[in-house]
Amino acid sequence: MPASEFDLIAAISERLPAPSERVRVPSGDDAAVVEGDPPSVVSVDAIVDGVHFALEAFGAEAVGRKALAAGLSDLAAMGAAPGEAYVVVGAPAEMPDEQLLELADGLAGVATRDHVSIAGGDLVSSPVLVVCVTAIGYEPDAARLVGRGGASPGDAVAVTGELGGAAAALSLLGIGAGDQSQTRSAVPPQLRESLLARQLDPRPRLREGRALAAAGASAMIDVSDGLGADGGHVARASGCRLEIDAGRVPVAAGVTAIAGGDGPALELATSGGEDYELLIAIPPERLAEARKAAATAGGTTLTEIGYVTEGQGVALRLPGGGGIAPRGFDQRRGSRSGSAG
Amino acid sequence: MPASEFDLIAAISERLPAPSERVRVPSGDDAAVVEGDPPSVVSVDAIVDGVHFALEAFGAEAVGRKALAAGLSDLAAMGAAPGEAYVVVGAPAEMPDEQLLELADGLAGVATRDHVSIAGGDLVSSPVLVVCVTAIGYEPDAARLVGRGGASPGDAVAVTGELGGAAAALSLLGIGAGDQSQTRSAVPPQLRESLLARQLDPRPRLREGRALAAAGASAMIDVSDGLGADGGHVARASGCRLEIDAGRVPVAAGVTAIAGGDGPALELATSGGEDYELLIAIPPERLAEARKAAATAGGTTLTEIGYVTEGQGVALRLPGGGGIAPRGFDQRRGSRSGSAG
Repeated sequence: MPASEFDLIAAISERLPAPSERVRVPSGDDAAVVEGDPPSVVSVDAIVDGVHFALEAFGAEAVGRKALAAGLSDLAAMGAAPGEAYVVVGAPAEMPDEQLLELADGLAGVATRDHVSIAGGDLVSSPVLVVCVTAIGYEPDAARLVGRGGASPGDAVAVTGELGGAAAALSLLGIGAGDQSQTRSAVPPQLRESLLARQLDPRPRLREGRALAAAGASAMIDVSDGLGADGGHVARASGCRLEIDAGRVPVAAGVTAIAGGDGPALELATSGGEDYELLIAIPPERLAEARKAAATAGGTTLTEIGYVTEGQGVALRLPGGGGIAPRGFDQRRGSRSGSAG
Repeated sequence: MPASEFDLIAAISERLPAPSERVRVPSGDDAAVVEGDPPSVVSVDAIVDGVHFALEAFGAEAVGRKALAAGLSDLAAMGAAPGEAYVVVGAPAEMPDEQLLELADGLAGVATRDHVSIAGGDLVSSPVLVVCVTAIGYEPDAARLVGRGGASPGDAVAVTGELGGAAAALSLLGIGAGDQSQTRSAVPPQLRESLLARQLDPRPRLREGRALAAAGASAMIDVSDGLGADGGHVARASGCRLEIDAGRVPVAAGVTAIAGGDGPALELATSGGEDYELLIAIPPERLAEARKAAATAGGTTLTEIGYVTEGQGVALRLPGGGGIAPRGFDQRRGSRSGSAG
C-alpha cells in the first residue's frame, strides 16, 4: 500500500490513461496547461470545514474569500493571468441560507478585487461544508509559464513577503495549540488584524507571479502546504535539492510574540503554510531584477533564503547548526506531517 | 429568505460581479461557454456520499465512474466534445488507500471509454467522501452549442433512451423505499444487471448530444434531477411551458416490476433522475432527422413526449386525465421535492 500522500497520488496517476497531446503540462504542477488560443492554465482545489477552515471561527464570508484566493494562488504560481472561476459549494441542508449568501459575498469580493469571472457553479447537499474551486487562467505564450520542475543546481531560492502569519492567525482564532488568552494580549490590535487577514483574507500574489515569471524565475510554487513541504515539491519535480537557510526566512511581524519565541516562530514560518506567498528558484544573476519586479508589481519584498544543489529533498538549516525537519500539511490525512521533502 | 434551491442560486448569482465578455454563456446552463480558439465548455459538479451515492452499496469504482460520467453528461447536453476533466477527491483519513485506487480505476475506465484526459486533480481530507469533477469540452463553432434557453412554442419535446432505470436500481441496491426481497425476485438477472448499470455505470450521451445539436435541437438538457425538474429548467430558461404526455414517456424495462405497477413506474421515470438521457426541444419538422441522428450516433431511440407552448412550468399529463406533480431532486436539501417547474 502507498505510504504517503505523494505515493498515493502517484499510484492514482499511474492508473489513469495518459492525457492527450492537448495537455502540455498534466497533473502534478500547481495547475495544468492546456493548448488553445490562448493556452489555458487550470487548477482545482477544495477546502473542507474542520480541515482547512473552521466555519464558526472564520465566518462564512472568510470561507468564500479563502476558497477563491487559494485557487487563484495556483494561477499566480504559474505566472498566469486569472480568467474564470467555477465554484461548487457542498453545504449541510440545515446551514442557513443567510450564511450561504455571506459565502457568496466572500467569493464576490475576491472576484472583483482580482478581476476573475465566476462563470459557473453548483450547490449540493453535503453533511459538511466543502467549497471546491476550479480556477482558469491564461497566458498567450505558454512558454512563459513557470512550473515546479525548472530549478537547476546553482539557482538561488527566494520567497515573496513574509511567512508564518496565517499559522499565527489560527492561534489568535483559538484553533490549534497554544494558550489563546496569552497570544491575544501579546500583539497590539493593529498587528493582530493584519495577521488575521493572512488567514481570513489571503491575497494571491497574481501580479507578482507574472512579474517573477517575466523576470526569469526557473521554478515557482505557492506556499500553501508550508515552506518545507512546498520546497519539497519543487525539489521532487526538478530532480534536485533545496538548501534553505532558516535564519533568513522572513517571519511576519507578531509571529514571534504569538509563538512565544524565535524557535517556535520559525517553526510556524517554515511549516505553517497557507501564507500563499511565492517560492521561486532563479539564476542568481537574475535575482536583483526579480526583486525589483516584485516590488514594482505589488510593493512586495523578495528575500533570498537559500540555493539549489544536486541531490534531493529540502534542508532547513538553522544559523547555529542543526536544522528544522521539513514538515507540512498532509492533505490526505488532514494533519501536519513530517518528511515532506 | 430565498424559498427554494433556485431562488437561492439566483440570490447568490445576484451577489457576484458580472462575468467578463469572454464568458459567452454564464452560470445557469448545463455548462458555461468561454471564448477562445476553440471555445471551451465548462461544467462543475460534485457528488457526496449519502446524498448522491452510497459508498458501501456502490463500491468505490462505481463512485469514480458515476462522478466523471455525470460531469461529461453536462457536456453532452451542450453538444460539446469532451476534452479534459479535473477531479478533486475529498476522502476520510480512515478510508483505505485501496478504495481510493478503486475509485481511480472507475475514473480511468470512463476517461478511456469517453476519450477524456484527466489532466489534474487534488486529494484532500474530508469527513465524508466527496468527488468534485470539472469537465471541459470543446466545439470549434460556439454557435452550434445548444443551451437550455432556446425552446419556442410549437417545438416538439423528445427524450433519448429510456427513463426510470437509475431510480429502480436504487431499489435493487436497497437504497430508498421498497421491499428489496420482492424487487430482487421481480426481475430476471440479466435485466437486473442492465438496470444496475444505469446507476453504477451511467453512459453520458456524448455522441447523441452532438448529433442532436447538429440535427437542429433548439434546447437540450441532461436528465439528472428528474424529467419534471429538468423540464422545468428548460421552461424557465426558455420562458415557455412544456406539456409532456406522461403516457408517452419511455420507461425502462423492469422498472414496472420493481416499482410494483405502471403508476409507480411512471413516478420513477418522471421524477427519478440520474438516467443521464437527453431531453430536447426541436421544431417538429426536424424531429425525423433528429431521430435518425440519435440512432446513427449511438443506436439510441428518440421518443416524442410532448410539445412546447406559451406560459411557464411543466405539466406531466396522464392518459386518463389528471397529471403527475413534476418533482425532482433538490440539490440544496439533498432530497426529492415538489414544484420544480
